[in-house]
Amino acid sequence: MKVVLLGSGNVATHLGKAFLNAGHTVLQVWSRNLEHATALSTVLKAEAIDDFKLLNTTADVYILSVVDDAIPDVVRAMPAVKGVVVHTSGSTSIDVLSCRFIHYGVFYPLQTFSKGVVVDLRSTPFLVEASTSDVLKIIRTLADSISENVQSCSSSQRIKIHIAAAFSCNFTNHLYSIAEEILSDIDIDFEVIRPLILETARKVTVNLPSQVQTGPAVRNDLRILDKHRAELDQYSEWRRIYDMLSTSIINKNS
Amino acid sequence: MKVVLLGSGNVATHLGKAFLNAGHTVLQVWSRNLEHATALSTVLKAEAIDDFKLLNTTADVYILSVVDDAIPDVVRAMPAVKGVVVHTSGSTSIDVLSCRFIHYGVFYPLQTFSKGVVVDLRSTPFLVEASTSDVLKIIRTLADSISENVQSCSSSQRIKIHIAAAFSCNFTNHLYSIAEEILSDIDIDFEVIRPLILETARKVTVNLPSQVQTGPAVRNDLRILDKHRAELDQYSEWRRIYDMLSTSIINKNS
Repeated sequence: MKVVLLGSGNVATHLGKAFLNAGHTVLQVWSRNLEHATALSTVLKAEAIDDFKLLNTTADVYILSVVDDAIPDVVRAMPAVKGVVVHTSGSTSIDVLSCRFIHYGVFYPLQTFSKGVVVDLRSTPFLVEASTSDVLKIIRTLADSISENVQSCSSSQRIKIHIAAAFSCNFTNHLYSIAEEILSDIDIDFEVIRPLILETARKVTVNLPSQVQTGPAVRNDLRILDKHRAELDQYSEWRRIYDMLSTSIINKNS
Repeated sequence: MKVVLLGSGNVATHLGKAFLNAGHTVLQVWSRNLEHATALSTVLKAEAIDDFKLLNTTADVYILSVVDDAIPDVVRAMPAVKGVVVHTSGSTSIDVLSCRFIHYGVFYPLQTFSKGVVVDLRSTPFLVEASTSDVLKIIRTLADSISENVQSCSSSQRIKIHIAAAFSCNFTNHLYSIAEEILSDIDIDFEVIRPLILETARKVTVNLPSQVQTGPAVRNDLRILDKHRAELDQYSEWRRIYDMLSTSIINKNS
């Protein structure tokens, strides 16, 4: 397929490379910032543009991969196109595209993308949605070419899934970074906690998390909780988080 | 070495099997509950006891692996032994053993143990501490026989490491279980989030979490945060956690 990328961030970058590897052609990379467009288009052997007047209107699919806030602006500014226009956002309704395009949909990779971190897209779930069943076929064909895990879901399901992702990924990584800080303050390398982090994640790949909760809170071991609280004296914010999550674990399991 | 296990829970079970595999002999399994002792001792080809009068006093190492609250009781009730007595607790000082034994220490596996879940102990960090350097040699020899990742640390470091473990493992699993509940309520299988969970953990095995934070909070995308908050209307506790962790991410990265 012929694809145009609108956006040049982490998601656009990872998708663009995967499209190229799957034999698709990336015609153009549009970005508000031409330098950013150029950096990515060079990698993808595509043309860089920062002006919608230059947009190639012959592509099969236009991937709108900008920050959520910018989606309505890009939608308004884009010329009419015959191809399918999709956005890649977890929390934006498919409807944001309906005012402007005939064929449109959603192409949401449920994954965490950081600059310079290679991700296995083949196992990444792609949650797709489309304006019509014909459009869905096109979107699915593109998704199937880069992932083995493509699923349909509605916009109202997708935002809930995005929230679940915030808990399982963004908040989880923040807890890791609190651990990083606590360890760093006693001159212990973060390396010591890595096997535990990996095992905690690995365990829920074959079990449900509600079935494998461990630690002092689920045992209602109040003496340990008090000891930990005292040790967290110097970190008032971490202690509030410690209290709230411990209480929540106790509530859930009592 | 000849080992006696005091306790028959998850940690005692995982350690006992590893000792057996490494060629050590488990002489006895003590538990307050003889049925529990018997269940584990059968697996380990050991003797089950529930009475300290029957304790074999010729073992090289006694592994005290009971809930933290019970450690002082067991210490008081145990007969004097010549062998090394260690506990396996993250948040209990080595000093709890000093009143009663001559050779003692700590043998703390930094790992999450659930019933029926096989764990790779060889990559599990064992944090050890001992009353003397001679005792440390014995404890290290035993730890080295089942793990490639044995490190010394003090009791004051160990409790901080245990707190870091609560954040990275216990609290993280609780966040997974919140995701499980949110997904279940919209009839989406937990399976969809598993690749994301695994990638989030995998990413910090080669990066520091502070360097790879993603999501709407770190982007300070207040519109998405508001959308998510509205969607969490039905889950007041999850919303409080969502707010606290989002604010904490914003504070840390601003």
